[in-house]
Formats: sequence, structure tokens, C-alpha cells
Amino acid sequence: SERASAILQQEEQQDAICPLLFIQLNQLLSTPAGLEWRETARWMKFEEKVEDGGGRWSAPHVPALQLHSLFQLRVCLQEGTILLDLDASSFKEIIDQVLSGQPEGVGLQPELRQRLAALLLLQPPHPPPRALLQLLAECGVAPCRGKAKSCPEPGAQLSETPLEEQVRQDGAGLGALLHPRCTAAAPLPFQLRNRLQKKIPRGTEAAHVAVGEVDFLEKPFTAFVRLRRGVALGSLAEVALPSRFLFILLGPQTKVKAYHEVGRAMATLLTDEHFRRAAWQAECREDLLAGMEPVLDELTVLPPGKWDHSAQIPPPSCLLPPHSNGDMAAAAGRASLRHSHSGDELERTGRLFGGLWQDIQRKLPWYSSDFSDALHPQCLSAVLYIYLATVTNAITFGGMLGDATANMQVVMESFLGTAFAGSIFCLFSGQPLTILSSTGPVLVFERLLFSFSHDHDLDYLEFRLWIGLWVAFFGVVLVATEASHLVRYFTRFTEEGFCALISLIFICDSLKKMLSLADTFPINWQYRLDNVTSYSCICNLSSPDVSTLILQMGHGVPKASVLGTGWVNGVRTQCLDQGGHLLGTSCQYVPDVTLFSFLLFGGTFLSCTVLKLFRSSRYFSAGVRKLVSDFAIVLAILASCAVDAALGLETPKLLIPSELKPTNPERGWIVFPFRANPWWVCLVSVVPAILATILIFMDQQITAVGLNPPRRSAGQGWAGFHLDFLCVSLLMVVTSATGLPWYVSATVISLAHMESLRKESMASAPGEQPEFLGIREQRLTGLTVFTLMGVSVFMAPVLKHIPMPVLYGVFLHMGVAALNSIQLTDRVRLLLMPAKHQPDLAYLRHVPLHKVHLFTFIQLLCLALLWVIKSSMAAILFPVMLLALVGIRKGLEYIFSLHDLSWLDSLLPNTASKEAE
Amino acid sequence: SERASAILQQEEQQDAICPLLFIQLNQLLSTPAGLEWRETARWMKFEEKVEDGGGRWSAPHVPALQLHSLFQLRVCLQEGTILLDLDASSFKEIIDQVLSGQPEGVGLQPELRQRLAALLLLQPPHPPPRALLQLLAECGVAPCRGKAKSCPEPGAQLSETPLEEQVRQDGAGLGALLHPRCTAAAPLPFQLRNRLQKKIPRGTEAAHVAVGEVDFLEKPFTAFVRLRRGVALGSLAEVALPSRFLFILLGPQTKVKAYHEVGRAMATLLTDEHFRRAAWQAECREDLLAGMEPVLDELTVLPPGKWDHSAQIPPPSCLLPPHSNGDMAAAAGRASLRHSHSGDELERTGRLFGGLWQDIQRKLPWYSSDFSDALHPQCLSAVLYIYLATVTNAITFGGMLGDATANMQVVMESFLGTAFAGSIFCLFSGQPLTILSSTGPVLVFERLLFSFSHDHDLDYLEFRLWIGLWVAFFGVVLVATEASHLVRYFTRFTEEGFCALISLIFICDSLKKMLSLADTFPINWQYRLDNVTSYSCICNLSSPDVSTLILQMGHGVPKASVLGTGWVNGVRTQCLDQGGHLLGTSCQYVPDVTLFSFLLFGGTFLSCTVLKLFRSSRYFSAGVRKLVSDFAIVLAILASCAVDAALGLETPKLLIPSELKPTNPERGWIVFPFRANPWWVCLVSVVPAILATILIFMDQQITAVGLNPPRRSAGQGWAGFHLDFLCVSLLMVVTSATGLPWYVSATVISLAHMESLRKESMASAPGEQPEFLGIREQRLTGLTVFTLMGVSVFMAPVLKHIPMPVLYGVFLHMGVAALNSIQLTDRVRLLLMPAKHQPDLAYLRHVPLHKVHLFTFIQLLCLALLWVIKSSMAAILFPVMLLALVGIRKGLEYIFSLHDLSWLDSLLPNTASKEAE
Repeated sequence: SERASAILQQEEQQDAICPLLFIQLNQLLSTPAGLEWRETARWMKFEEKVEDGGGRWSAPHVPALQLHSLFQLRVCLQEGTILLDLDASSFKEIIDQVLSGQPEGVGLQPELRQRLAALLLLQPPHPPPRALLQLLAECGVAPCRGKAKSCPEPGAQLSETPLEEQVRQDGAGLGALLHPRCTAAAPLPFQLRNRLQKKIPRGTEAAHVAVGEVDFLEKPFTAFVRLRRGVALGSLAEVALPSRFLFILLGPQTKVKAYHEVGRAMATLLTDEHFRRAAWQAECREDLLAGMEPVLDELTVLPPGKWDHSAQIPPPSCLLPPHSNGDMAAAAGRASLRHSHSGDELERTGRLFGGLWQDIQRKLPWYSSDFSDALHPQCLSAVLYIYLATVTNAITFGGMLGDATANMQVVMESFLGTAFAGSIFCLFSGQPLTILSSTGPVLVFERLLFSFSHDHDLDYLEFRLWIGLWVAFFGVVLVATEASHLVRYFTRFTEEGFCALISLIFICDSLKKMLSLADTFPINWQYRLDNVTSYSCICNLSSPDVSTLILQMGHGVPKASVLGTGWVNGVRTQCLDQGGHLLGTSCQYVPDVTLFSFLLFGGTFLSCTVLKLFRSSRYFSAGVRKLVSDFAIVLAILASCAVDAALGLETPKLLIPSELKPTNPERGWIVFPFRANPWWVCLVSVVPAILATILIFMDQQITAVGLNPPRRSAGQGWAGFHLDFLCVSLLMVVTSATGLPWYVSATVISLAHMESLRKESMASAPGEQPEFLGIREQRLTGLTVFTLMGVSVFMAPVLKHIPMPVLYGVFLHMGVAALNSIQLTDRVRLLLMPAKHQPDLAYLRHVPLHKVHLFTFIQLLCLALLWVIKSSMAAILFPVMLLALVGIRKGLEYIFSLHDLSWLDSLLPNTASKEAE
Repeated sequence: SERASAILQQEEQQDAICPLLFIQLNQLLSTPAGLEWRETARWMKFEEKVEDGGGRWSAPHVPALQLHSLFQLRVCLQEGTILLDLDASSFKEIIDQVLSGQPEGVGLQPELRQRLAALLLLQPPHPPPRALLQLLAECGVAPCRGKAKSCPEPGAQLSETPLEEQVRQDGAGLGALLHPRCTAAAPLPFQLRNRLQKKIPRGTEAAHVAVGEVDFLEKPFTAFVRLRRGVALGSLAEVALPSRFLFILLGPQTKVKAYHEVGRAMATLLTDEHFRRAAWQAECREDLLAGMEPVLDELTVLPPGKWDHSAQIPPPSCLLPPHSNGDMAAAAGRASLRHSHSGDELERTGRLFGGLWQDIQRKLPWYSSDFSDALHPQCLSAVLYIYLATVTNAITFGGMLGDATANMQVVMESFLGTAFAGSIFCLFSGQPLTILSSTGPVLVFERLLFSFSHDHDLDYLEFRLWIGLWVAFFGVVLVATEASHLVRYFTRFTEEGFCALISLIFICDSLKKMLSLADTFPINWQYRLDNVTSYSCICNLSSPDVSTLILQMGHGVPKASVLGTGWVNGVRTQCLDQGGHLLGTSCQYVPDVTLFSFLLFGGTFLSCTVLKLFRSSRYFSAGVRKLVSDFAIVLAILASCAVDAALGLETPKLLIPSELKPTNPERGWIVFPFRANPWWVCLVSVVPAILATILIFMDQQITAVGLNPPRRSAGQGWAGFHLDFLCVSLLMVVTSATGLPWYVSATVISLAHMESLRKESMASAPGEQPEFLGIREQRLTGLTVFTLMGVSVFMAPVLKHIPMPVLYGVFLHMGVAALNSIQLTDRVRLLLMPAKHQPDLAYLRHVPLHKVHLFTFIQLLCLALLWVIKSSMAAILFPVMLLALVGIRKGLEYIFSLHDLSWLDSLLPNTASKEAE
């Protein structure tokens, strides 16, 4: 680490000496209006060129040169003028010195010298690409205000003004250039002028490469100039930066593009770190030439004729230093497996509550800054986004819980519980960015618990209270004994098995619910239009006596035919209440509701998926796409609810009380420990409590492990596993006593929370990926979200319009999305692909295919086993099976080599990297 | 053309002298079992390497070398042993000569020589990647038959057997190598051994590059060997080819991979045409070194640190010769605009029927071969595929026509007409691969015609007969005056406008039809479950008198309550027939049918789309994917029909008579000219006939132009526009007289027909695209398809189970797919994309963005105008507007430069290339 910091210092020093360069290639073109300088390409790290006819910038790409041109460049530097540390303050001065500084024997005649100077001092315009609207705005709508003072005297007077003014003047110049049809110089909009400049890191200087064919020259004229200090050269550069280097190559006509290619070679050389440093430090021609050698040595070459020259190689998403050849990545993978969990946070202290104590000590110093750090606009948008996601989640899980527990815990309870548990967790936890939520496994457990209580005539909430108390007790014991160090055994194998299971539960539950609608609202598949008069339903009160038959015709039918007491509305319930039963061919059928629900379900699912995918589409700006994609689920729910409301069919809706009271009238806000159940239940509930503890522990810690990589890569270290689990355990006491749902960390929303608080470096060269600087870790966003959540309890009048099929659609989407995000799914897909068509995945390059398949197969087998146990009579043993997963993972080490496992089963961020895409 | 053929001859000669090479790199690796040769890469045109740990071949990619290695290679060739035209018949002999042929002064000591020989003669195994199943089959299921004669003496006896036997023995050797766990040599399955060999063109020879680090050498030992004749070197090569070149580089340990990189450089050099020729013809060391120069000169270089070394550059889809830089493509585009239609087929002869006469003369010599050429298995699969597509098309269009014409032309007529017109066209036309079909514009015209007849009390079929006769007359006149030369004005602008219009008609019609279902089968959106007893429907005969009220309860209700005459089935129609009317709240509603239809509609559309997209997925082999994608529509229809039949709801079905008679009982098979309409109708119908002529001419010829490019690129030239149009015109007489639909060429199916008859070169190096050789043009496939079609008339009992919503779904899919396939759609999408995210399209590189947008805008405006006219009162003028499109296109030449138009509006294959993807 000492060595690393030394290297870092050294690099900083070098950066200080040798700033980044913005390199611009100006080419001399003969236009109908005479010779003209045009910007045809530019470089920061990668090349952007002006496309032939399109007048637009290409995407940044890896500059591909001709080897020949590099050698020509070397000859140019060997023979041409080299001026190092030239002291000049204007372009004209530079040109004068360059032309007089010719090496002896090749001195130019005075006449030639003058013509060259005139040519070089022609001000080079550069055509930035324009969108149609801009063009219209510029040339159609915006009037060309006033005639500008014709074309300013080239070079001379431009460079005599100081830099600040230069910028403005430069902008005006640019503006004039942007109006090919108006000769006036309208001021350029600020943001257009600064779009590129904003991207360029501070301290960057400019380099100019000017090449062209001139008929009056008999042999090439080359000059390489380094200025003693950065000088603003006016409109020579597209952006207002002090110029440092200048390379000029003019010569007689040769075969096409030769000078242009040499110019590109020069520019590309200047993008290279080694050569740039050499150029900076060179004291003579030889130093400069020597600086080329390391670059030439490390060149990659592509053989002729094998490669489409018009294809542009896209910049890599991450750059390894040359010569690493991916071996480093492999090594890193291996290292991460061995050492990923050896951070000192997970070392056992051997003392009671030792881990917890460490966690608190580690977090306490940051506590006040955890609030002050939140004062950033990014936090505001994070709050809105996460709030909506949390509300959606609470609604969907509330709905599902309601189904599972006969409305003992529904949306009202879900809202209150989330708000309470979430804000407490945000205040006291170790990883305050984590969002608590009901989760799939807890849902499964609650369903089991409820049906068990129902079957054995136990009071569900009271039974649950005791289990919750025991779980909290065991939780504290686990914290005291530092059990969280078990986390080191949670690898991708475990995590993915668990995640796949949850996803499958989501998918199956939503489909099952939809199919069960067909039982609730049966469809008469045998309905025949021609028999329309044969379908009816009547209320038969008490006996089959014909005289008591009540025929109910409703509106529009002669009242005379009604033999009953004139019930028109609410007839069905009244009839049943009075002990009657319904008779007729249409009684058991409900038209349209089921099919319409399926349409809503499918529509919600599809629109969620499509809107989510919108982020990776090419349409609109990145901001709009991100917005749409982030609010995909909210938008989908709103759209579906609007359709449902507009059509007005009686679809099943979300059940929610309109006041602040438990949904189910049979229960209150406090669960009393000894009321309905026999006293020994408090002892017996130890058994389910052990299972619940395992479940909650696994669920909480696997999620926590999954959440750590992105934080960790930002150097924020592993955070308080012990402290977090203590919070979760203690919250169990309160939620059990008040009959609210149980909460653990939720992967997807927490990741979204972190993602929305990413800090990235702003300034980066075109084509380069922004650098990840860390996550804005604080407690205020979460706290605000959950406070808002609490206030939302009063949203009942709005929420009760949400149809259940819409929520099922959202659940299906969540399940499918989660399933798609794990590597297991990728590997299952590989099973169906011929080797030729398989994507170029890192682990496929390093692990034999049959081993990858074997690994997938074992994982699927475990998953199938989990599923069978969950669905069978042994469901109550399900948490134990989760624990067994960890054991099976351990066993894998006997089947696979460590090398294979490091590729297949490392804990490198997986869900995180997926989400970040 | 003479020059071209000379070049061609020259190239053939060169190919004869200098065959392609299969180059294999064997590397010496130290394994636990000692030193071992391993194949680590291979080349034909591109590089494939064995992935590090995966034991699998990478995808073919452009070999990226280090410049350094190329220079090292030059040093090696300067200093090492060079043996040209070595005469040897075995590997051992070669090695002996190589080791004794060392240049003087560097002669190896005898001891060293022996060790080197032993090392080189170690037989190099090579690990071809294996799928899991293969592995299981090899090592688990297939018993390892008999012990092979241990490991054969390396080299020596292998190369003494002649080539044919060698191959077999080599196979066995390979087999042995494939069984790392069985030591026996089970014979290798034939197809495995030959999978790569099948791809390699005949006459290819092998080159071997062997590199490695040896500790007993003190300086590198290099040898380059060219054999006088190709010698089979046994298991040295992965495939059984005669070997020609050998490059050996062994040396002391240096920094990692140095020799490997030099070996790669040698292999890559050998893939280069120029160097290969030099190596073939070299007579001394200097020739060989000189051969490197042109390659070095043309190298493309990538600067260090800008590029991810582990990324593999994919082979380009089409290779231009080096230094063309895309200018050629631009030139080609320009040329194609100027000369695309100047083929002599479209020159006016100036004589009556001159063009027709030329067409016939051109086609007649091929007439007999048009039948004999069809004897190829490819034609059989084409027949099946095109038959299914045609049937689907006939059903869908039949259904739509039936809707438009009150069942005057439905599926029965569509089947008969298609079979008749199609087979006549196949027999006599100039482009026999074209498939005739009803098309969108004709459908629009028929709808207009029918509603006009209906409004003015004219007999539709009789009116249509006269129009048809006039159209045929005008058609003959157009053929006589060689009007088809107008085709030269049909460019992409016209074609796409037309195609977009048809697609939009498809889309809107199918959606409108679906929405109209809601009128036919209304949904009771106000239905409330609780009011179930208030919904009923009764038949009120004649008067509001209560006593005539018939209450019909149907099954399950006490019969005593039924006051009527006991009708149970068919009550609705009987009631209405007897002059009664229906009374009640449920009479006007039909439950479930509409919503279920929407589910069927969406399901069919989605499954069509997904199955079509399956072709470009990565799953399963290319054959399976093609099959699924080709039969996507049939599969989707079958699946939807199965669902519909299983659930048994009374959805609207396809109307089709079960016997061979017109669907509408009011019409017969012959339409008589003077029966129902006044006599002057035969004269008045000239006016609509002119419009219809324009419509049919445009529809036929635009399609014909769109179909030509693929044929043309195969050198089959433009075919009989005149002859084809004469066929279409004369067929109008028959179809009008028998009341069958009118037929013109259908783009999509015809393209599919051509596509299924593509001839491609089989042998091609990995990574190279197969070469397009032409289309198997003949008349028999079409004829067979339409004969089968005629027989299918008796399929009525099956077809009547197809629900209409399914057909609408297919139509929607066809419309969306056609709309997606045109460039206009791509350009509309560009409007929504920020310039940064736009795909790298050729025309965007060459035409300024605002011009592209302007072009799109004008095209959209034309389309909107067409749509408004089609939908408004002026609909009858619609064909004239189509003609106006051509004029507007002409006008574009005043707005856009020829350069821009050549990129935006050329007639380069567009639909064709899309379909081929």
C-alpha cells in the first residue's frame, strides 16, 4: 500500500508536469472560395473525425493508423524544423519564428516564406455538426443581427487580446462559422459553445496539427513547435484552451491523403502518455525521436485486407494497461475468491458482542456527516425515485400478504410497517442505504404459518407474536456470538440459488393468482349467442315451491313480470342473506371479468418490461431514458389503472381501509400474548422460531453480501453486518407485537438506491467511460423516503382503485427481471446454444464448457430440491434447506478446481453490475 | 469487360499456383507429463485460438499482432535456416534435412541436433473443443473398443503410407487424441472428423508453425521450409491436408510468449495473399524477405493503451480490397443511381410490342432448362415453405376480401384464383419465381368498388367484369407501347412510399376489424356481479301483451316455470324469424367473445413476431432456427387455433363453404356481362378502369423492380417487365369473368421464394461470409406450389375452424414487419435519436443529418397525403396520387444534390437485404 501511494504520487507529479492534450487536426482544403483550413478530426484519448459528407462528428473510436505514415512522420521529425520552448504570444509570432527557424541548407526563399505565412495565417474554421432544429433556429427563426465587421484580419489581432476575452470573441467567431447562409455573426448560445469544453478536464492544453497540399512547394515543409507557455491562439482551436504544441506539415501534392495520414499519426502519438511526456521534456530533436520508440514497440498491428477500413473500433469499456492481456483480470478473480471475505470487519473478535462493538465504533464517527452529506440535489431525485419504488413494493407485497393471511396483514399494515421499520433502520443501521421490505421467503413463511394456525385452530397473530419474540432473542444471540462471520460462506452459488428461488416464487404466485381468478369469476365457455334467452338467474328462497320463485328482470323490462318484492340492486347478497339460493344457467358465471383481468395483467407486464428496456434504447437523451426506465413500474401501474377505470368493469381491486385502522376488523393494533391460544404455545413456538431465524438470517445476510461489492469497490469497506442484523432482530419484536409484516433487506430497491446515489467523475475525454468515485452514503434519503411512506397511509382513497391483476403483472415483471439478472440464467441459456453462437463471456474463455454445464446442472438440481421442499409437506423445513445450500457449495470445492470456481462462483458484483448497465 | 476477364484469368492462374493455406500453430508446453505439443491457434483467413482454460475455439477474429513480433520474425528469417523446395516424404525426413541444413558457422552440435529432432518428432496432439454430450458419448456410452497399438512411433511410420490411407489413419489418431481418458483408439465419427474439413475449399494445403521454449538451447533455432510437393504429415495437422510450409522456432526461455507471438506473426503473414505468393515463388532468402515488405507497408496499427487486448475484432461482413476506404462503395452507389436502369432490357425499341418481343426472345432459350434445373433437393423444401406461406396469404386476404365485399370473394375464391393465376403466371412469365397474390392496394380498390356499386345499386361483379376487361385492354396497350420503361423512375422513394402505405393499411385494417368486434359482440362494462339476477333476455312476440311473454329458462331450471313452447336451442333466430323482438338487460351483450378475441389477436401477433425473431437468436443450430422462423406464421396460427378450439368459445370464424361452390349463394362461377346492370355501364366503367390500370401497373412494376436487385446481383439480369405485365393483364380477363380476385406480384412471398432458392458457395474459411452464387431460377417450384394450392380447395372442413382474430393478428404482424423492413422507418427513428446515439449507417456518414431529416420529412408528407386521399371522399383518385409520387421524386432532384440522392434514394437492394438478414 505504501508502494501504491508512492506510485500514485509519482503519477500525480507527472500529471502536473504533463497535462492532457486536446488535439485538433486542421486540414487545408481547396473549396470553390479558395484554400481553406478545416477541422477534420480531434483527439482527447480517442479519435473523432468529421464524416465525409455528413458534416458530423463520428463516434469516438480507437485511431487506426497506417504503419507507413508513422515512419513518414519519423522522417518528418528527423528532417523538419523543431522549435522547443518557443516564446511567443500570438499565432503570427509563432509562424514568423517557425519560418525563420528553418534548419540551414533548406532555408526557404523569402517569397515562399511569405506565401506560406499568409496561408498558415488563414483562420481555420471548423464545422461542428448541427441538428436540424438548431439549423432552423439559427438560419430561419433567429434573425441574423447586423453585419459583422467582415472577416477579421487573420491571426494577428485575435491573439493579442487576453484569454478571457478571447473566449468570447472565439465564440462569436464560431457563431459566424455556424451560419453558412447568414454572413452576420449572431452570438452563439452558451451551452453549444461549452458542450465539449465542459467535458474536458481542467488543465488540459491544446495541440494543433495542420496539414495540407500546396502547389508552390517543391518539397515538404515540416515544423514541430513546443511553446514555453500555453498561449490562447483564438479561433485556431475549437475550444478555448491555451495551446502548447503545433505541428505543421505542408508539401507538394502526393498520392491522396498522405499528409493527412501523417497528421493523424502525429495527433495519435500525442494522445499517448509516453510520447506526450517525451515531447514535454525533450530538449532536442533526438529526445523527441527517442520518445517515439516505446510507442512503436508497443504498437498492435492488423494485417492488410483482413479488416474493413471504414469500420471504427469502439473504445473499450475498461482499459487495462498494455501487455496485461487479461491475465490480470484472471488473477484478480482468483484473488477475490481467496480474500474477498478476509476484510478485518469479518474477523471474529472472540468476545461477546465484539463484532457489534466494532461495527458501532466504525460507524459512530461518521454519524453526523451521514446527515450533512445529504445536502446535494442528487439526493432529492433519489428520494422521489426510491419513494415510488417503495410504495409500489409495499402495495404489491401488501396485496400478496393479504391473500396469504386472509387479510390479517394487507396494504395498510404494509405501509405502516415499512414506514416504521425503515426509518428506524435508517437511523441506527450500519448500511443506511439498505431499504427494508417484505421479501419472497418471508411471504412463503407467513403463508405456511397462517395455514398451520388455521388448520390447528390457533390464533395466527398471537402465535406469530411468540415466534417473532423468539426470533428476536435468537437474533441477539447470533449477534452476540458474531455469527455474521458465516457470511464468508455466502458465494454466488448460494446467492443465485436463493435469488432464483425468490424469482420463481414471484412468477408462480402471480400466475397462480391469475388462474385462480378464473375460479372466482368463472367464464361460460359454452355460451352461445343464439341461446341468449336461455341464460338467466333467479333467487330461490327456502323451498322448491314454484310460487316462491322470484323472477327478477331489472330495468327496461315490464314491471308486471316481476313477481317478487321489487329488489333491483344488491339482489344477490340479499337473496343469499335471506337463506335463498341462486338458480339458473347464468348464476355461476361472471362475464368478461377474468378475460379483462388477463388483458390488464399482460398489458402491465409488457409495459413494465418495455419501459424498463427503454433505458438501453437509442431514443431521446440519456436523461429522458433514465427517467422513463426508473419510473417504468409507476407508469405501467398508472396506465393500467387508467384503462381499468375508463372501461369501468368490476375487476377485483386492492382491499384497503379508508381510515387508519387494521384492514381486518377482527384484529387491533396490539397483539396480546396470552388471549386466544393456550399458554404452551409460547414454548412450542421455539421450533418454528428456529426455522424463521435461519430464514431471516439467510435472507438478510445474503442480501447484505450482494449489496456490498459496489460500496466496497468505492473503498467504503464492508459495513456492519452485526449491527444490521441486530436492528432487524429488534424490529421483529415491535412488528410482531403490532401485527405488522416482518422486514429484511430488499436487494433490488437497495441496489437502485445506491445506483441513484453514484458519484462519477464528470470530466472525461470523449469515448472514455466516466470513473466511479463512490456512493453518496448518508442516512437522510432513506429517512425521508420512509417518512413520506408513513404519510402515504392516507392515500387509501386512491389506492383502492388499483386492480389486483395489475399488481400481479408487476410481480411477474419483478420475478422475470430478477431471474434475468443472475448468471445462473445466462448459464442455463448456454445449455441451449451451440458453442459457436455462445457469447464471449469471460468465464467461457477460462473454464471448459462441460464444467460450466456441470456447475449449472448442480445449481439447477439444488433449486429443484428447494422448490419441491417449499411446495411439499416438508415446506416447514425449507429454511434448513437454505442452510444446506452453503454446505453444498462447500462440497463443490471437491468437484471443481479453485481456478474454475474463481470464475464461476466468485463474489464479484453480479447483480450490481447488471443493474448498472 | 475484356480487361475484367483478363484479371479474372490472372487471378485463377494465381490461385492455381498459390493455393489457400490452412495454418496451424503448435506450441510446446510443459505439462505434468513432460513436454507436449499443443495446437493453440489456427488460421484460414482469420485467426481462431484455443481459449486459455476453456479448451474451446474462439470465434474467428482479425489477428492482432505486435509490431515488435513482426520485426523479430524478420530477424528470424534473416538468420535462420531457409529450405525451399525441400524434397521429403515424411516428417522425419524433413526434420533431418532441416537440422543438417543449418547455415554454416551456426551448425548445431550433433548431441543438440538429436535432442531437437526427438523434441520435434513428438506427435502434437490438438484439443478440439467438445460439447458435453459428445464427451459423454465418447467416454461414457461408447465403449473404448480394443487397445490400440499403444502410441505409434512418432512421425516415422506415419508418413510412409500414401495420402488416402493417411487420412484414415489420421482419423484414428485424432480419435485417440479425443479420448483423453480412454487410451484406446476408437474410430472417430465421420461427421466430427470432417466438420472443419467440409468447410475448407479443395486444393487447400497446410502450413505448420511450431514454436516453443527449450532450456537446452542457448540461442534461437529457426527454420522455414517449403516442400517441393504437398506431403501428408499425419497427425501433425488437425485436418488431413497435404502440408507445404513449415516454420519452426525454438529457443531459450525469454520473456513470456515472445516465440508464440512470432509464430502468430508468421501464420498471419501466410494468410496474406501477397506474402503467400512470395513464399510460393521465392527462390532465395531475399525473395522471402522482400515478400514481407508490401505487407509491412500496408499494416494498420493501433496505438498502445487505447484498445482492450482481450477483445477480438470480429471479421467484417464484406471485405473491400485494402486502400479502398469506402470510396468505392460511394462510387458504386452513385453509379447505381445513374445506370441502374440503363440495362438494355429497358431501352425502348420504338416498335409496337418491341419490348415484349425482346422479353420472349430472351426467355425462350431457357424454357426447357427452367424445368430441368428444378431437380435439386433445395427446391423441395422451397415448395413446402412457399406453399404454406401462400395458403396463409390466401386465407388472410380471402378473409379480408370477404369482409370488404360482403362475401362476394372469400377464401374459396381466393384459393381457386391464386391456384389458377399463379400457375399460368409461372408457366408464361418472364420472372417465374414471382408469386402472385392479392395485395393491399387491390384490396382498397375492391372495397371502394363494392361500396360504390352498393350505393348506386349496381351489380358489383358485373361492374367489376367490365372494369377488368378495360384494364386488360389498357394493359395490352401499355405493353404494346413499352410503357414498362417507366420503371426507371421507380426509386426507393416511390417504392418505400408505396410499401409504407400498404403496411399502414394492413395495420389499420386489422386494428379496425378488431375494434368493430366490440360492436358485433358488445361488452356490458356496467355488469355488476351483485345484480346477477337482474340480467336476462326474453323474446317478445308481436305485442307488449304480458300473456305472450315467453320466459325461457333453459336447462337446469324447473320446466314448470317456462311459459312458452319449450324452445331451448336456436331461440334467438327463431324468435327474430317469427317477427318477435328481444327484450331484456342482457340481450344486446355478448359476454367474453370480444375480450377473448383480443387475447387471441395479441397472442397471434406476439407469437408471430417472437418466432420470426427466433432466427437471429443464439439458441439451437442455424437449421432449427431457420425452420422455426420460416414457419413462424403457420405455427402461430396453429397454436392460436388450438387454444381457441380447446376453450370452445364462440369466436367469429372464417367463412368458407364446405363444397366447391361460391361462398355467396347469390353468385355463380361465371359473371355475365349484361344481366343486372344497364348497358351503359360497360362504357362508364372506362373511368374506374383507368384508375385501376394505374394501380395495377404501379403495384406490379414497383414490386418487380424491388425483386430484381438480388437476381441482378447474381448476374441474371433484368427480366421481362413487359411479358410479366402482359400476363397480369390477360389474367385480369379470366379472373374478372369468373369473379375471382385480381392478382399482381407480391413482394414478401416472392422474396422469400428467391431467398429459399439461393445458391451459396459452401467452402469458405471460418469467419468469412459465404459467397452468393445466384438464385436457382426455374418454373417448377412455383407450378408445384399452385397445383397444391388448387388441391387445397378441399381443405374447407379444416379451415373453417380458424378464428378471424387470429388472421387479423397475422395481418398486423405482416404490416408491422413490412414497415420495419424499409429504410423510411429507420430514418423516422433517427428523428427521435440524439446524434450521439444514432447507428453508424452508411448514408449518415455521407449525407448531412438535416438533409436526411428533410428527405424523411418529404416522404412522410407524401405518405400522409396518400393516406388522407385514400381515406377521404377522393379515395377514387388514389391511384393517380401513386403516379404523382414518381413526379415528386423527380422534383427532389432540384432540392437534393445527386450525391445525397445516391445515398438516400438508390435502388440498391433494400427489402432484399433486410429479408436476407
